[in-house]
Amino acid sequence: MRAIADPLLVNDAKPERELTTKALAEALGTFFLALNIGMCSGDLAPFAVGGTLMIMVYAFGHISGGHFNPAVTLAVYLRGKLGDATNAAYYALAQFAGAFAGAFVSNILSDEPGYPAPAADAGALKALLAEAIYTFALCSVVLNVTTTKNQEGNSFFGLAIGATLTCSALAAAGISGGAFNPAVGTGLPLAAAADFSSVWIYWAGPLLGGAAAGAAFKLMGSE
Amino acid sequence: MRAIADPLLVNDAKPERELTTKALAEALGTFFLALNIGMCSGDLAPFAVGGTLMIMVYAFGHISGGHFNPAVTLAVYLRGKLGDATNAAYYALAQFAGAFAGAFVSNILSDEPGYPAPAADAGALKALLAEAIYTFALCSVVLNVTTTKNQEGNSFFGLAIGATLTCSALAAAGISGGAFNPAVGTGLPLAAAADFSSVWIYWAGPLLGGAAAGAAFKLMGSE
Amino acid sequence: MRAIADPLLVNDAKPERELTTKALAEALGTFFLALNIGMCSGDLAPFAVGGTLMIMVYAFGHISGGHFNPAVTLAVYLRGKLGDATNAAYYALAQFAGAFAGAFVSNILSDEPGYPAPAADAGALKALLAEAIYTFALCSVVLNVTTTKNQEGNSFFGLAIGATLTCSALAAAGISGGAFNPAVGTGLPLAAAADFSSVWIYWAGPLLGGAAAGAAFKLMGSE
Amino acid sequence: MRAIADPLLVNDAKPERELTTKALAEALGTFFLALNIGMCSGDLAPFAVGGTLMIMVYAFGHISGGHFNPAVTLAVYLRGKLGDATNAAYYALAQFAGAFAGAFVSNILSDEPGYPAPAADAGALKALLAEAIYTFALCSVVLNVTTTKNQEGNSFFGLAIGATLTCSALAAAGISGGAFNPAVGTGLPLAAAADFSSVWIYWAGPLLGGAAAGAAFKLMGSE
Repeated sequence: MRAIADPLLVNDAKPERELTTKALAEALGTFFLALNIGMCSGDLAPFAVGGTLMIMVYAFGHISGGHFNPAVTLAVYLRGKLGDATNAAYYALAQFAGAFAGAFVSNILSDEPGYPAPAADAGALKALLAEAIYTFALCSVVLNVTTTKNQEGNSFFGLAIGATLTCSALAAAGISGGAFNPAVGTGLPLAAAADFSSVWIYWAGPLLGGAAAGAAFKLMGSE
Repeated sequence: MRAIADPLLVNDAKPERELTTKALAEALGTFFLALNIGMCSGDLAPFAVGGTLMIMVYAFGHISGGHFNPAVTLAVYLRGKLGDATNAAYYALAQFAGAFAGAFVSNILSDEPGYPAPAADAGALKALLAEAIYTFALCSVVLNVTTTKNQEGNSFFGLAIGATLTCSALAAAGISGGAFNPAVGTGLPLAAAADFSSVWIYWAGPLLGGAAAGAAFKLMGSE
Repeated sequence: MRAIADPLLVNDAKPERELTTKALAEALGTFFLALNIGMCSGDLAPFAVGGTLMIMVYAFGHISGGHFNPAVTLAVYLRGKLGDATNAAYYALAQFAGAFAGAFVSNILSDEPGYPAPAADAGALKALLAEAIYTFALCSVVLNVTTTKNQEGNSFFGLAIGATLTCSALAAAGISGGAFNPAVGTGLPLAAAADFSSVWIYWAGPLLGGAAAGAAFKLMGSE
Repeated sequence: MRAIADPLLVNDAKPERELTTKALAEALGTFFLALNIGMCSGDLAPFAVGGTLMIMVYAFGHISGGHFNPAVTLAVYLRGKLGDATNAAYYALAQFAGAFAGAFVSNILSDEPGYPAPAADAGALKALLAEAIYTFALCSVVLNVTTTKNQEGNSFFGLAIGATLTCSALAAAGISGGAFNPAVGTGLPLAAAADFSSVWIYWAGPLLGGAAAGAAFKLMGSE
């Protein structure tokens, strides 16, 4: 008979891990996420980007919870599964550092590295709405598949999280640029020395969506 | 040793949840399903649409069973896993409300929102047949992966359900429009103020398919 | 603590099920497999076809083992997980009936139903080799993921089996037509009243591959 | 109550298996991996190639750990889950034999078999960097999903590993050719009698990436 000693919720306080190890996991995962957003373009890019989120969640979720996104970190913090706010700050710093490093490497490897940018004809309001709504979806999926007792020990958490990014990018990349993530939405334009006038959208939209997902989760009363 | 207290069948009466919470979960999931049908077009749309069903089933299945479709609700009701008919009515109402809201948002975000419509040269009978057959597949998959004792606790239920929609849309969207769902088949044309003359097909076909799936499941005698 | 009473190997004798129920499950699964081969064409068809196999394995595997293919039935029979040869015969009959029915419906719904046929310039020998090698892969995957004790209770069996068909079709459909299955390789040309001169390839190749997979599995000594 | 006797870590010493059986599993898996790299081209090839790795990991992982790549074998060896160096040498030999055989068959079946080659305008340094970074990702995923106690018994290991190859090929095949694997990076050009001047890149890059992944895993302290 197999005894299962370790906690099986992907997002739980995990006091047995040091914060620096968790931060390293967050930096590595966000590195590859930003790198592959920079490296991929064309119709299949949403599959590469969502797939990269999936594999990083499966690889490093057992260490840090697998956020790679300050909006997800905000939602998990509001859910009460991250400990205190210091942890959230460390996570966000590690995510920005990882995203910038990944973006930097994509600028070395690729002649035309990509970065998220709203469509010229969409307007800031539509872009903001799209970023908020789809980050709400992403964070709602994360909270429901990695923090609820009655889905403990499932094997689908990474698939669900990665596929949310793929579907959201297929639906809305043509409007908002499809970041749904302040870290990659800042790190990639920064490394490409691109226009920064729309970067606020990747802060306001995703953080709004992440906070709303935390509130909706509480409203629905799962444990 | 880990004790598993909660029921692990995705579709079970779940008396511990309030009906309003379940209805909210159904509305949210159908919102995103209709939204992404509205937002996505082109060859890869079936992957975005089926992927969206998958992620919503994984996120909210533990709350409501993850139907997002009155035909699925009918099949689960006939299977005896939804409680009384009042629940089915609440589910269907929530699904229609969610579908209309998602369709409405897709009309705000997109300049050319999509909605299901039969191919002009297919004829109503072929469209009806396609909707019925593929909804039969969808509901048969749902019943077998979320309500059978010997597949309890599996991690593949959302993947199987979402992929059924993807494959069905790849096969038959060019004939029937590929709704397989009265809620999205009504909500999207309504929000787009489109021609309503074919909407009956998305009621008759899917409800016929869902009822047949319930009957076939009983015939095959799984528990 | 949860007690798991039913056997968790997907392919096991399953004496608690009646043979007619198993045959019905095989017929239904092969119906949808053949239907979607008939309905889908273009670059994405391998995803629709492999996806259909995946969902049918997840839906009906717990009833019949989810073969939908006489070559798989042969391999499982040689593996000793199907009981006596009468069962194999019933399975094969049900598969042919289902494949023909699915092919027939694809001819009603589609103006240009597809069916497997070797490439004109490939030659029979290359087509035969491709059918044998890729059916060997398919049957090896089936035996390893659905009949081995140390992978009991896994949630990936349908994904692995369906993806094998997708990858094999991506690799070899341009050479052999990509049936890897005597039932669909006969039922679809029959319903389309197509040239039958190459149909022997879909018998000889897959049955050879299935038998070799059974032998290789024994050689490798898994239980 | 189900008793689970066998070890559930995919990569563990597995002393109950003979080394020749493990080597045969490695040869078979690498055969199909190299075969499908040779057979597939075009935009969807990364899905066929990563999908093939996934199915082979699911099929043969329970026998050999499912490496099919000397860089992965190096990382698992450094992680201490392969036993002594003799095992690593046998694995690498089996992988090369399998890759060459698969490449050979792809040359029989296909008129234009593919093989990895750096882009003419990328330069050796960029190709080397891409091979090292993405093999680091692949080996990090393998170590985290197949050798850590707190992810024991998961069903996602093959999906995560295969998707890493798909995403890496989508991102970097246009730069380095996308082998991330000394066995396929040598076997395919050899069977095609192609230019060998860049083959060193598929040794240096992946082995560097695999060794770095082993070191990073130790640094992060998982068990």
